[in-house]
Amino acid sequence: MAPQRILITGCNRGIGLELVCQLLQQPSPPVQIFATCRDPDSPQNQKLNDLAAQNPGVVVIKLEATNSQSIQEARKEVEKHLNGAGLNVLVNNAGIMTGSSLESANADDMLNVYNTNVVGPLLITRAFLPFLKKAAEENPGKPLSCGKSALINVSTLLGSIEKTPETFTPYPVLSYRCSKAALNMLTRCQSEGYKKDGILCTALHPGWVQTDLGGPHAHLTVDQSVKGIIKVLDKLSEKHAGILVNWEGDIVPW
Amino acid sequence: MAPQRILITGCNRGIGLELVCQLLQQPSPPVQIFATCRDPDSPQNQKLNDLAAQNPGVVVIKLEATNSQSIQEARKEVEKHLNGAGLNVLVNNAGIMTGSSLESANADDMLNVYNTNVVGPLLITRAFLPFLKKAAEENPGKPLSCGKSALINVSTLLGSIEKTPETFTPYPVLSYRCSKAALNMLTRCQSEGYKKDGILCTALHPGWVQTDLGGPHAHLTVDQSVKGIIKVLDKLSEKHAGILVNWEGDIVPW
Repeated sequence: MAPQRILITGCNRGIGLELVCQLLQQPSPPVQIFATCRDPDSPQNQKLNDLAAQNPGVVVIKLEATNSQSIQEARKEVEKHLNGAGLNVLVNNAGIMTGSSLESANADDMLNVYNTNVVGPLLITRAFLPFLKKAAEENPGKPLSCGKSALINVSTLLGSIEKTPETFTPYPVLSYRCSKAALNMLTRCQSEGYKKDGILCTALHPGWVQTDLGGPHAHLTVDQSVKGIIKVLDKLSEKHAGILVNWEGDIVPW
Repeated sequence: MAPQRILITGCNRGIGLELVCQLLQQPSPPVQIFATCRDPDSPQNQKLNDLAAQNPGVVVIKLEATNSQSIQEARKEVEKHLNGAGLNVLVNNAGIMTGSSLESANADDMLNVYNTNVVGPLLITRAFLPFLKKAAEENPGKPLSCGKSALINVSTLLGSIEKTPETFTPYPVLSYRCSKAALNMLTRCQSEGYKKDGILCTALHPGWVQTDLGGPHAHLTVDQSVKGIIKVLDKLSEKHAGILVNWEGDIVPW
């Protein structure tokens, strides 16, 4: 059920970058991996550019999640490379977190984080939707899966309203939590809206990972998280439509 | 357990206006009702101004939920009227809904609705928090209740991620749904953050009500909804902290 063509946002570092690395190491790697980042020419993007130089299947695409024009330009670029083929998987991985609390969160912080973490995935998904639909049409008999057509929104346990009491005191991150609860809602809506098109829509909690966002005290290495994510992507099916699963495949409550 | 002093946002019409009316008709009405609206001098605000003219306990306050300066000015005005007393209940009722869908929602719509429905309640609550704390301090022995100190965020069933499949096709209202899921998260965070201060924080689904927002096909009259809401407010206790209840007091899942 391995996807032939996959697009991942936020690939300059962390989970996005490691996903590209590990997908390349699979027994049946994707034919094309579209790895997007805000600024391909930045020195911070060196590792991704090196990967692309060594692997012709990796295409680095400039995409700024909060910029409609950038999204449209990325769409055109990807369309050119797809050359009529469908896109099996879109991973909305790019996201930001700030340290805001009930006391410190202001309007700018709330709106900025929401814009990147919710509006971005909404607009990006809409831009690439024709290619996801195309992939589903290429596989009419297949059940919902990442091998057919899937949208994966990278969410978080911290976006679980139910689980908030367990983590709020050490990690208030208010603007992040509110944005990810909204992203979970968006995922559920996308699942309802796109199931008729044969597209599986699932929100994914990658675990608390040692990245720039997760910090050094996180429980999982990026390697561990992404190993889990790839196994989960491989197993996703209709029963995961419109729900939040973690890197081990367990359901996380809303 | 009736609140002595209550502030309700969005009182020029709909549920906010009816709450003011019905609270005044209670056997023990509040001593002070601060009824806020965006533009007290507008002709649309006539009913509220009439109520205030006939009832000295009703104080109309100008408050624009998306304007920090307006919130601070409202805070000062309320502080003057409270004259050292606490505020027992803050009802964040003001909200907006647009008809956006997965296909039509754009960044402006998403951010605008989020700003009014989530950022507004965050900033308004923070502005009035000292008065809610004061009310809790005035009633140190009392359990959590609206008679002591409570924050009520008016949410909706349409903000329930779990229930989305039941209502998505006829009512996609994407920007509204995402904002209300985030408001539910905000409520849960506020409940965690403010329980040490003796403040009960609860999200409330008023039902599908025949208002400008709910439209003419809604199930409930404003009168029915608000009768239910007042009964529910009267019964809210510690077990309702950080959850979403409907106008009949039943729990709505996240």
